[in-house]
Amino acid sequence: MNLRVPGPTPCPEPVLQAMTRQMSYHRSEEFGVFVNGVTAKLKGLFQTQGDILILTASGNGGLEASLVNFLSPGDKVLAVCIGAFGESFADFAQTLGANVRRLRFDWGHPAEPESVRQALAADPQIKAVLISHNETSTGVTNDLQTISAVVKEFDKLIIVDAISSLGCIDLPVDRWGCDVVITASEKGLMTPPGLAIVSVSQKAWQAYAEAKMPRIYWDLGKAKKYLEIGQTPSTPAISLFYGLATALDLMGKEGFPNIIHRHVRIGNAARAGVKALGLSLFAQESHASNTVTAVRVPNGVKAKNLLKLVREQGIVLTGGQSRLEGKIFRIGHMGWVSEADIEAVIAALRLALPHAGYLLP
Amino acid sequence: MNLRVPGPTPCPEPVLQAMTRQMSYHRSEEFGVFVNGVTAKLKGLFQTQGDILILTASGNGGLEASLVNFLSPGDKVLAVCIGAFGESFADFAQTLGANVRRLRFDWGHPAEPESVRQALAADPQIKAVLISHNETSTGVTNDLQTISAVVKEFDKLIIVDAISSLGCIDLPVDRWGCDVVITASEKGLMTPPGLAIVSVSQKAWQAYAEAKMPRIYWDLGKAKKYLEIGQTPSTPAISLFYGLATALDLMGKEGFPNIIHRHVRIGNAARAGVKALGLSLFAQESHASNTVTAVRVPNGVKAKNLLKLVREQGIVLTGGQSRLEGKIFRIGHMGWVSEADIEAVIAALRLALPHAGYLLP
Repeated sequence: MNLRVPGPTPCPEPVLQAMTRQMSYHRSEEFGVFVNGVTAKLKGLFQTQGDILILTASGNGGLEASLVNFLSPGDKVLAVCIGAFGESFADFAQTLGANVRRLRFDWGHPAEPESVRQALAADPQIKAVLISHNETSTGVTNDLQTISAVVKEFDKLIIVDAISSLGCIDLPVDRWGCDVVITASEKGLMTPPGLAIVSVSQKAWQAYAEAKMPRIYWDLGKAKKYLEIGQTPSTPAISLFYGLATALDLMGKEGFPNIIHRHVRIGNAARAGVKALGLSLFAQESHASNTVTAVRVPNGVKAKNLLKLVREQGIVLTGGQSRLEGKIFRIGHMGWVSEADIEAVIAALRLALPHAGYLLP
Repeated sequence: MNLRVPGPTPCPEPVLQAMTRQMSYHRSEEFGVFVNGVTAKLKGLFQTQGDILILTASGNGGLEASLVNFLSPGDKVLAVCIGAFGESFADFAQTLGANVRRLRFDWGHPAEPESVRQALAADPQIKAVLISHNETSTGVTNDLQTISAVVKEFDKLIIVDAISSLGCIDLPVDRWGCDVVITASEKGLMTPPGLAIVSVSQKAWQAYAEAKMPRIYWDLGKAKKYLEIGQTPSTPAISLFYGLATALDLMGKEGFPNIIHRHVRIGNAARAGVKALGLSLFAQESHASNTVTAVRVPNGVKAKNLLKLVREQGIVLTGGQSRLEGKIFRIGHMGWVSEADIEAVIAALRLALPHAGYLLP
């Protein structure tokens, strides 16, 4: 099966093989050296001198950690929402007792920096801004550089869900002034799911010192203390660390600028291929994502049926979420992906579409 | 290296090999069938008709889940503490805002059921009892059957940390009336760390409906809903699920009663071997654990030095935690362990002890 969903992505064979290594003791010096090595490589990828902490959890766990460590119940936060994941991040903050103001944009469109500026100017009590770098549900990449600069004008915290962008789309964490950035192992990092990775700026640590949401498993301050002796507070997912180390080596060999360019090429190829089939992109094209392409389901076609026909050809795509269910389907192209993979997706769609009731142009 | 710490344990080769399987889509029907199969096998191991939910997290995450789903801030809980892990479980509850009353017993000793009865009788407002089945820090197994029966006399919830017992020491969850039982993948289940597994009784679900601690990633009710369609709320650690499925198959082949007996034999062998070296057990022997043996460091010996000498022979043991640091060392013998492994540990100790300044008898 050619898995072309927006995560998990297929893993290169050396990554899978690395996970056959026998367990080692996570409180040994050797493991400490190993963990510090992985962390150093991640700092390169995040382009940060700040702290990087690895949690044994899915990406959602990383998002929860990015809230409970830096906020107190009642804190005002501005949640920039351009799709299902932005809404879900806002829901998390609300469940945890934050006072959430949602700044919504039409799905398929990016957030407008000027609206963020107005929202921050209108309410000086806002403490932090939550935003997705890349909204996986709509295939839109926000202009994070500009928005982060706006947030910094107001000297607020910016907390960035970069789960489906980091390692694929450029995100120089320090240069753009992003305080907390969250990613997960199973997207750009070409590793199986189960690790969430969070970067923390100095400004964020200041917020940590005052934040009052209870934190146990997600306590990043504790994680930082343990990392100083090469450990994690709880037993880490050792095998996934092995896999991640190998994936980071592979990424190092390809070179990060090359990886970003590959995603640009492949994003272009996916969009061109879809349009050549006469289909419409869901995302505003100026901000279409280079890691996931959302395609409108044409009139008369049932999304489920189309995906089933594509799957019969060995390719797994996925549908829309929430209010987009049945209205779009999505092609994932992040991490371990080549032009040939996208050609295979387009070829499968070309074969499937007529059987799903769509007349090719 | 022969890893003989109380977790992670070494994993059988087929378990490691299972993790080389390529990613599959966690929202596909196939994966749903697979997850339901794994869950059904776990129900057998837990001996429960209740719900079993698998979380992508270390065991500590499972412990946090076992609190936030069933308690509200201010709820009175009785935390039975016989060692470092019991104290840490109580700390978790306190951090989350529970009103924690600790019932402490001397380290090295089990909890006395009669004291639990008195504590419950003295305070009818107690809502739940927290207890470790097997206290990994001291090598003591509590008489959970009797204590659980006491808790049921008062019709309270009992929440059991079975991280270092389940799958090794008999724990018939339904028969003993345990409401919430937590274990982790890297102990008795012979799988790498990264999965926490929680069983939930009907009575616990009633508590869930009223519990007010915020829960997002740990929400077991959400996990149950997703499991009904063969899914997990967040992307699961797919590779670890593959490994766990294989480990459960291996356990099924050995047969659970045989596995329990093997742990009894090996526990006996470990204690006999230690005593033959003239060393003293830390745990009261009537309740000594069959998964971890805590040994007093003899006078004049430095624990770190002894462990280093043992490690030079390819065997990894570990020291004491918290107030037991330097005072005991511990031998893990859970999961994938044979008599030969214990013989190797004792042989290594026999060689190392004289070099560490201890005169063999």
